[in-house]
Amino acid sequence: MKPWPHKHILSLSNFSKDDYLSVLELAHKFNSINKTGTKKVPALQGLLVTSIFFEASTRTKHSFELAAKRLSSDLQSFSPSTSSLSKGETYLDTALTYSAMGSDVLIVRHSVSNVPLEIAEKLASKKFKTSVLNAGDGTHSHPSQGLLDLYTLSKFFDPNNINPDTLCNKTILIVGDVLHSRVARSNIWALTAFGANIILCGPEKLVPQEFNTFVQSLPLNQTKDPIYQRGKIEISRSLEESIKNADAIISLRLQKERMKENFLESIDSYSEKYCLTSEKLNLISKKIPILHPGPVNRGIEISSKIVDEYPYCLITEQVSNGVPVRMALLYLLSKYNKN
Amino acid sequence: MKPWPHKHILSLSNFSKDDYLSVLELAHKFNSINKTGTKKVPALQGLLVTSIFFEASTRTKHSFELAAKRLSSDLQSFSPSTSSLSKGETYLDTALTYSAMGSDVLIVRHSVSNVPLEIAEKLASKKFKTSVLNAGDGTHSHPSQGLLDLYTLSKFFDPNNINPDTLCNKTILIVGDVLHSRVARSNIWALTAFGANIILCGPEKLVPQEFNTFVQSLPLNQTKDPIYQRGKIEISRSLEESIKNADAIISLRLQKERMKENFLESIDSYSEKYCLTSEKLNLISKKIPILHPGPVNRGIEISSKIVDEYPYCLITEQVSNGVPVRMALLYLLSKYNKN
Amino acid sequence: MKPWPHKHILSLSNFSKDDYLSVLELAHKFNSINKTGTKKVPALQGLLVTSIFFEASTRTKHSFELAAKRLSSDLQSFSPSTSSLSKGETYLDTALTYSAMGSDVLIVRHSVSNVPLEIAEKLASKKFKTSVLNAGDGTHSHPSQGLLDLYTLSKFFDPNNINPDTLCNKTILIVGDVLHSRVARSNIWALTAFGANIILCGPEKLVPQEFNTFVQSLPLNQTKDPIYQRGKIEISRSLEESIKNADAIISLRLQKERMKENFLESIDSYSEKYCLTSEKLNLISKKIPILHPGPVNRGIEISSKIVDEYPYCLITEQVSNGVPVRMALLYLLSKYNKN
Repeated sequence: MKPWPHKHILSLSNFSKDDYLSVLELAHKFNSINKTGTKKVPALQGLLVTSIFFEASTRTKHSFELAAKRLSSDLQSFSPSTSSLSKGETYLDTALTYSAMGSDVLIVRHSVSNVPLEIAEKLASKKFKTSVLNAGDGTHSHPSQGLLDLYTLSKFFDPNNINPDTLCNKTILIVGDVLHSRVARSNIWALTAFGANIILCGPEKLVPQEFNTFVQSLPLNQTKDPIYQRGKIEISRSLEESIKNADAIISLRLQKERMKENFLESIDSYSEKYCLTSEKLNLISKKIPILHPGPVNRGIEISSKIVDEYPYCLITEQVSNGVPVRMALLYLLSKYNKN
Repeated sequence: MKPWPHKHILSLSNFSKDDYLSVLELAHKFNSINKTGTKKVPALQGLLVTSIFFEASTRTKHSFELAAKRLSSDLQSFSPSTSSLSKGETYLDTALTYSAMGSDVLIVRHSVSNVPLEIAEKLASKKFKTSVLNAGDGTHSHPSQGLLDLYTLSKFFDPNNINPDTLCNKTILIVGDVLHSRVARSNIWALTAFGANIILCGPEKLVPQEFNTFVQSLPLNQTKDPIYQRGKIEISRSLEESIKNADAIISLRLQKERMKENFLESIDSYSEKYCLTSEKLNLISKKIPILHPGPVNRGIEISSKIVDEYPYCLITEQVSNGVPVRMALLYLLSKYNKN
Repeated sequence: MKPWPHKHILSLSNFSKDDYLSVLELAHKFNSINKTGTKKVPALQGLLVTSIFFEASTRTKHSFELAAKRLSSDLQSFSPSTSSLSKGETYLDTALTYSAMGSDVLIVRHSVSNVPLEIAEKLASKKFKTSVLNAGDGTHSHPSQGLLDLYTLSKFFDPNNINPDTLCNKTILIVGDVLHSRVARSNIWALTAFGANIILCGPEKLVPQEFNTFVQSLPLNQTKDPIYQRGKIEISRSLEESIKNADAIISLRLQKERMKENFLESIDSYSEKYCLTSEKLNLISKKIPILHPGPVNRGIEISSKIVDEYPYCLITEQVSNGVPVRMALLYLLSKYNKN
């Protein structure tokens, strides 16, 4: 395995193919270990991992925390409801506090984009060695989700190898609220890195036309894209049309709370056009996998029938794969710290 | 010890005498270990136990979680307040998610009867091997409480042996809100299995007359009662009368929130008749043990004087015994999975 | 190290110099261990530590819990929001419940003074061996904070030795809401024990004149002060004046919720007089350390500039030192129990 070059994991825009491969190969090893009787690995014994979820979450938080436990690290879990935030503490001070207690990795989720980056910079300015692992920030990035989806799709198309290159020239259809989705953005970085072409599908208010140049604009603090040739991005308004060309579908969660802001006329008219149903899947003959970051709004993004009965609905596989992928990320960060 | 036949523990209606004995003997062993310096047992190392309490609880949740820790398992604890339930996830999807993360045992509490059963069936349909351990569902069942009460009473009457047959022909008085009590139902199954006779005591609205045939109606999915001859059930409206025949008393918690539904004229008139006080206990000469699942509404179910000073009030013993009994249940489920 | 004489740690008023030294020397050892790769110590393996925070907290709770994990104990964490308190359980019954589960140490925080003492007495009356460690009670005491501040200041003045006698005849300025501060009270006991003189600075409503005789009144159940000669206490209304004589400053948190009770005319006028700013620090030439128990109300107690840039602002050191100090306390209590 190549040396791991990232002190923090904040986004996938700066991931090289080697970086992706390091994560996937390691995740695959942990996956094998998880399936044997003894699931514990002593790799992070004595290290302290702190999860700080300023935004509520079930799956991601428990998945990360389980990953930390499987690696035998100590774990602190910060829950805002019992916190000092009500006493007026800033998120930077919260992060400093946990670093001062000796945390080796902070796993951070926040509803505002780039808070994890801001925390990483603050900690560096105070000479802390703590790594920051972004567990989802605003609409910006959700790297562990992007990586577990990459792993899930790569295993689907080539079950016997760790081979994300199997995605080259495949067409991945991402349907739903792309505009507000950090999951979609991380998926795009990860999938195009291996040559997959993306169709982004949804109404204009949720999938603005400009998204077709998304990977051409790098973040401010990044000068160069480590990927030479990325897959292409196309925009579509019709799920019926685009489904015919898809090799896989990633359905996104509709943030109902955002619907108030008038992005959609009604949830009914949205789901009529964009909900994955047996009728729409019957338009194509081949069986293609369906992913969703969960939790699903049944009948809005995917019909209950598909969730419960369609054999290539990979939602539980995604949840299962989340644990070893996050073990890999924690492990790699701990190795960086030791260099 | 006999092989353990239950993949899930959902109720006590299908427990054989051997099943009860397996739990009690194992609990007794763990109890001895807990009293030595080293309380940890590596029996469940590498297994993942997830507690999912859709309904709030202190004692039961912490008791189960401590049992899991003592057995060295990894533990995930789902708390609804920081959950995805607010995002509209169903409890079945929540259960699937934790199973997909690799949970070996789900400990489930829910305010609706039979949710643990429903979860167990769903997991089986999805080919998960996860066991479900009911930590209390609606008014249906609270098996671990029934077992720890059985253990506590059995030890009281025969301190030197694991001998629930000591309960044969003893009279156990259960007083209070039987109608809404899953504890009472589990107590009835467990105690009558060893030949104890039960007096259910309370006003008609809380102790309907039909309860005297309770053990004659098996659940829909159960064809046969594994117990040949159960103790008898009698209904009484007078605590003063029934106390004279009792060898032990189990006082139930009054769910104040249910009093709104007009089951009781007033709490004062209830407690006058059914609260365990020194005056009522003085009606009998022998010293009989008093149990209560906790937390006690002092002065409503039991007087403070009895809770604090009566030497045979076994409430703290019940709490203490809860841990080894739950260790036994987790251990037995882990053995089932390995067969 | 001298034998540890306290079954419970409830206050610092009964600490001898030997007691303080035992804590500081042990904390120093744990601090060294924490800085090496392997941070875990098996000292409390198999013991059960339960944190019961009836009052919300971030730092103190996580700091104690991390200390317990570092010592390899099992840990239960009671959070009132998911508790039985809503069911009407008293705090004494809660404490009894966790002791009955087998807890070796209860770490208790409560908004009412002397609740930890009350719990300790209740447990003793029920023959439990459980120790109680006060994590802050009302305005009474916060011993672990007093000890970590003592450790932090002692290390500042003599970095190479565990030598709190270095504080003898130094002047420590404590500024802010002394009246409501359990931190201030514990600081006063600890610092005067080693001969430091204290200036308490603030408006009369927050720093009543009578505080200058504070260490002369021992608690009811304590007959004798184990310290022969304590440092002196002086009251000041002017931060500008008193800062000139200070060798160190402890700034206290302003409990905004208490300002409703009309203790202060306005927060603006308070902070104008008592907020630590660059201007006020520029009145003196020497560089003196600033401590604060956190979280800071920036711009009210200390300016953001001081918090972020002043090199002798020791807030993160305090947080770091909190973990080994609390490890020392848990370790010493576990040793008492074994005698």
